[in-house]
Amino acid sequence: MLKVAVIGATGAVGQEFIVALNKHKWFQLTQVAASERSAGKKYVDALRDPASGILRWHNREEVPEYARDMRVSKVDEIKPENFDLIFTALESDDAKIIEPKFAKTTPVISTAAAFRYESDVPIIIPGVNDDQADLLKTQSKRGWKGFVAPLPNCTTTGLAITLKPILDNFGVDKVLMTSMQALSGAGRSPGVIALDITDNVIPYIPKEEEKVQVEAKKILGKFKKDSIAPADFRVSCTCTRVPVLDGHTETVFVETEKSVEPEDVKKAMLKYSKGVSVGHLPSAPKEYIVVHDDPTRPQPRIDRELNDGMTTAVGRLRKDTAFDNGIKYVLLSHNEKMGSAKGAVLACRIAKGQDDPLAPSNSFCY
Amino acid sequence: MLKVAVIGATGAVGQEFIVALNKHKWFQLTQVAASERSAGKKYVDALRDPASGILRWHNREEVPEYARDMRVSKVDEIKPENFDLIFTALESDDAKIIEPKFAKTTPVISTAAAFRYESDVPIIIPGVNDDQADLLKTQSKRGWKGFVAPLPNCTTTGLAITLKPILDNFGVDKVLMTSMQALSGAGRSPGVIALDITDNVIPYIPKEEEKVQVEAKKILGKFKKDSIAPADFRVSCTCTRVPVLDGHTETVFVETEKSVEPEDVKKAMLKYSKGVSVGHLPSAPKEYIVVHDDPTRPQPRIDRELNDGMTTAVGRLRKDTAFDNGIKYVLLSHNEKMGSAKGAVLACRIAKGQDDPLAPSNSFCY
Amino acid sequence: MLKVAVIGATGAVGQEFIVALNKHKWFQLTQVAASERSAGKKYVDALRDPASGILRWHNREEVPEYARDMRVSKVDEIKPENFDLIFTALESDDAKIIEPKFAKTTPVISTAAAFRYESDVPIIIPGVNDDQADLLKTQSKRGWKGFVAPLPNCTTTGLAITLKPILDNFGVDKVLMTSMQALSGAGRSPGVIALDITDNVIPYIPKEEEKVQVEAKKILGKFKKDSIAPADFRVSCTCTRVPVLDGHTETVFVETEKSVEPEDVKKAMLKYSKGVSVGHLPSAPKEYIVVHDDPTRPQPRIDRELNDGMTTAVGRLRKDTAFDNGIKYVLLSHNEKMGSAKGAVLACRIAKGQDDPLAPSNSFCY
Amino acid sequence: MLKVAVIGATGAVGQEFIVALNKHKWFQLTQVAASERSAGKKYVDALRDPASGILRWHNREEVPEYARDMRVSKVDEIKPENFDLIFTALESDDAKIIEPKFAKTTPVISTAAAFRYESDVPIIIPGVNDDQADLLKTQSKRGWKGFVAPLPNCTTTGLAITLKPILDNFGVDKVLMTSMQALSGAGRSPGVIALDITDNVIPYIPKEEEKVQVEAKKILGKFKKDSIAPADFRVSCTCTRVPVLDGHTETVFVETEKSVEPEDVKKAMLKYSKGVSVGHLPSAPKEYIVVHDDPTRPQPRIDRELNDGMTTAVGRLRKDTAFDNGIKYVLLSHNEKMGSAKGAVLACRIAKGQDDPLAPSNSFCY
Repeated sequence: MLKVAVIGATGAVGQEFIVALNKHKWFQLTQVAASERSAGKKYVDALRDPASGILRWHNREEVPEYARDMRVSKVDEIKPENFDLIFTALESDDAKIIEPKFAKTTPVISTAAAFRYESDVPIIIPGVNDDQADLLKTQSKRGWKGFVAPLPNCTTTGLAITLKPILDNFGVDKVLMTSMQALSGAGRSPGVIALDITDNVIPYIPKEEEKVQVEAKKILGKFKKDSIAPADFRVSCTCTRVPVLDGHTETVFVETEKSVEPEDVKKAMLKYSKGVSVGHLPSAPKEYIVVHDDPTRPQPRIDRELNDGMTTAVGRLRKDTAFDNGIKYVLLSHNEKMGSAKGAVLACRIAKGQDDPLAPSNSFCY
Repeated sequence: MLKVAVIGATGAVGQEFIVALNKHKWFQLTQVAASERSAGKKYVDALRDPASGILRWHNREEVPEYARDMRVSKVDEIKPENFDLIFTALESDDAKIIEPKFAKTTPVISTAAAFRYESDVPIIIPGVNDDQADLLKTQSKRGWKGFVAPLPNCTTTGLAITLKPILDNFGVDKVLMTSMQALSGAGRSPGVIALDITDNVIPYIPKEEEKVQVEAKKILGKFKKDSIAPADFRVSCTCTRVPVLDGHTETVFVETEKSVEPEDVKKAMLKYSKGVSVGHLPSAPKEYIVVHDDPTRPQPRIDRELNDGMTTAVGRLRKDTAFDNGIKYVLLSHNEKMGSAKGAVLACRIAKGQDDPLAPSNSFCY
Repeated sequence: MLKVAVIGATGAVGQEFIVALNKHKWFQLTQVAASERSAGKKYVDALRDPASGILRWHNREEVPEYARDMRVSKVDEIKPENFDLIFTALESDDAKIIEPKFAKTTPVISTAAAFRYESDVPIIIPGVNDDQADLLKTQSKRGWKGFVAPLPNCTTTGLAITLKPILDNFGVDKVLMTSMQALSGAGRSPGVIALDITDNVIPYIPKEEEKVQVEAKKILGKFKKDSIAPADFRVSCTCTRVPVLDGHTETVFVETEKSVEPEDVKKAMLKYSKGVSVGHLPSAPKEYIVVHDDPTRPQPRIDRELNDGMTTAVGRLRKDTAFDNGIKYVLLSHNEKMGSAKGAVLACRIAKGQDDPLAPSNSFCY
Repeated sequence: MLKVAVIGATGAVGQEFIVALNKHKWFQLTQVAASERSAGKKYVDALRDPASGILRWHNREEVPEYARDMRVSKVDEIKPENFDLIFTALESDDAKIIEPKFAKTTPVISTAAAFRYESDVPIIIPGVNDDQADLLKTQSKRGWKGFVAPLPNCTTTGLAITLKPILDNFGVDKVLMTSMQALSGAGRSPGVIALDITDNVIPYIPKEEEKVQVEAKKILGKFKKDSIAPADFRVSCTCTRVPVLDGHTETVFVETEKSVEPEDVKKAMLKYSKGVSVGHLPSAPKEYIVVHDDPTRPQPRIDRELNDGMTTAVGRLRKDTAFDNGIKYVLLSHNEKMGSAKGAVLACRIAKGQDDPLAPSNSFCY
């Protein structure tokens, strides 16, 4: 078993790590860390909001037994050399300071944006851009024995996954996306306030659109000689918040290079889903992408838990009417499962063997 | 005072007509009609749902006094010649049969789609395409003394209003729109069921996208010699339903012909709003369009009631990143006020004088 | 396997029957019936709303494979003699006519109120009043070989279950209950309309309070010599509807005969739960009652699915301040699982053996 | 005009003060104070949440012009002697320290609980217990020239108002109340988190039940010789939070001393409402209590704004079935209007004249 720590373990994403690592075949969680406020408490006690008395646990399952009584450490009590791998769920400003310290000795899988846009850092979606993982090796130039491997923003994940087979089969020229993002995407401290979102839509999420626009192109870009050339298409997004607990819904309009029929896109997506490189991993879903023919799907409440939130659901595939060559569709991605902690766990796969996953030649990578 | 009737008076749109006509300076409501089920009842009694006992009245104000005790007629008891004008809020299939009967003698302002796509029928948004009202005269070839003048679909209204100043100033090449539509847009019989939409988004509204795509181009088209040439741009929509009571939110991406800056679009919209042709009418809002600089606006719950729901609110104006020349924004339009019954009442304006609004030369039109 | 039919199979309760009978050890569903509108269609097609195109299926799981393609029959095509047992999920008026026809030959387990208040009909909650099942035998005087055995109203279920150990241990004098009932309790045709309940509470559910007040006393009454004497306490209810998908929350104030401490009530409830008569049945929950010490529990969204909706959750047990002897608490019961179809399936237990459950001496009863 | 300050002006209650004082006939707001975080900013800027960018303003109307640009002071910059009256909207712990400082020179109207339970402090609901205002004079023994006059908890307000005519006409023995409280009752910093309350009910609000139980008896108690004897009835509450923006709904069961019919209670309530002592004040509602015959009312979304939130709405008046003499009903009270800031402004009435409202004999009181 690989020894792992979760940093930022009491937040929304941190909680998903706790669930994702419960009874995992490869990983043993031996320490959790969070903010000063939580430090020293039992994990389950650190989750309780002092004002309302409510347990700020946000998951269908109860807090897993194995984690309830774990003592929460301060972040600076973490000795990275004690771990084979560290999962971080930190605010970007904190990640910028903390993650390099850990990376000196230990691989870090991060859900923060802090390093995503640096030239020696790939943004990994397992099954989409596995080849870019090799870029991690160049981080040794920073004097790191480990690395920092960030996941994308949760809104990028489903978009990049669904664009991948379109790009590979039909070419992509332009992408125009509108997101209807779930409450859990904003976390719990405090995240979205009920007074703000009840009977409402908030048409703005700070910095979100810029992230998606850059990340999608980097993820789907070409990896050559120690650098990634962003994909050669244009992206424009409008990101909104809607009163939905979990699951980001996105409407996508794509101008393709080649002429394209909905039926062909469906086939391409399903073929890609079937052959996806992560299919055999413990956290991988049975289906990587599902495509609905029912025009009323995907719906977040109904489809988000499919395969425990690891499947990207697509629906309403139809010819676009604004572009000569184009396709439009709706996608749903679970922002806290595939789009976050569970996706991070999925990312930790072992390339060529399981006997020595951390050996250089055989290395622990994506 | 002009004598008017409202047909379909108990439904969601019909109720808005009852409110919009309350104490109106020009119109006197003298008869209301609805389905068999309601016929013979007092208006207020016809609104009550027999199963739950709930008054299916959907408006901030209580049922206006003047309408509470009006006896509801069957539709076929309506004698159109008794009215100067008839407002209809019917399902499309019913409208197709009923409205022509009324139009033989009497102008009909309709919220149904039944006649919108016929070549001698303009789709009027007062302040946007007033000139197209002249097309109504050609309906005399149908043997009608009156006419059928439909409003657009409630999702088209805000889009066409905001595109108008962009088209006039910068040219429009492509429009890609995603709507997040309110519950009231689906009416109340039964409309959207709470079990379907709570904690959810429904990514599909039957026929909605096709309507918007065709209507926007017709409304913004050129009227020449008894016919309308649709505007020469392309439209692509994805229409969704969200858990919001009233107010359709739309994200819009526009490729313009000319290079364009957000600040210029704002100016163009405000200039258009200020000079709009309907500014002096009793139902007209103080502002036709407002433009928010606050990026978190417009929000449906906060902005929908501005100027009693007659103002289209725009926000998040920014350069589009997918097009060389392009602009993107978010709009909010009250689907049951400007987008429906109150818009219909606003549409009934008197062209050149108020002494004889129905005189041919001076005619009752838009 | 016992052959069973479900009548009213497309409604909210009917759907739960389909789920509850999926892969059941004892029951084989061989026919489903519903209204004219659905008859002749495949089950899955009959669920689709024609206006919105939405599949009116309301369950976490997808429509079970075994039922998707079953042809829906008209109710009068059902030959009751073909079944060992019939489950009905009908409106009360229909049940009054249809259930006696079936009962001539076949046991009927009903979720309707039609027969609940007749003197030869027990209202069964398995585990609470099993002894009252003997009353079913007296229905032979109606000339029935079968019987009609109704479940209680879904709001009664959790109340009666939690009152049972209080009554047995401390005596009950008065019960004052306020319910906050879920949307699914009103069904789906159309049930609660989103426009009515968003950002709202409806303080009235027709006939609900009277049902609970009568049923709780009958269920907890004494069965002697072919009749039930209602329990000798007084009940007063106020029933409301809240914007919650599933799970009825109830606040309960009880005046007891004896002095009582919260800790004693907790013990009594847990002891009762542990020894409950249905513990060994296939549909029975691991825990019949759970008692939370966390004062923020039970919460419907978090607690309703515990043990697949078959557990009644209790919390906030504390001394009442209005009565000399009294206790107050909050309970949560899943209105569509234990409170309805799954409770009905649980009710069908076999008294003394499993080899011939329908033999008279050994009879199929509760 | 009386010069007033609002302390805690940026919170939910503070915002209501800003609205309530807008264009008030008697009061001129000359200074606002809030926490360190807000100090020095313009009022409107202090309302904006730094993380989401959302204006945390929670009111139908926009931020009133007169307050937008007011500079927010630190609390310790407030010189109480500069004001005729100070309104405070503080957390209880802060109020305990700050209010006595102000009261040395100046009357303080407080929405905090800090002083409610002290023997020389009345809890005022204008129109209910005006006579108890005389108790304020005894605070001079504290060395105060001013006083601290707290409003009740927002959940107490509607209960006490509706009990008043019942108590006066029929006597009250026991009160059992369940509240379904609105989100705004928990304020905005952060108040209720959307992830906690969507599709949910929280069955617990810390300390709320104890407050209501004590306050209702004090408010309706007898004032004699410088002290208040709590009313001689018993109260038991269960307080819950529901997904409703504004307006606390309460179900109330009352055991009365005398036999009572619903119709008589209705008459008593309406008679009391008509003759209420505050009827002539600027902030007073047209109706103090309304009683609905429609059993589906009151509903929070529909009824809360009646008379700008200053009216308590009652419905479902019916005989109680648990008590020999008893009545039950549902009430709705706007927790942020009558139940908080606007109620506080209403409380500031001038007893005998308007020329010198602060003269001792003519004193500024309730």
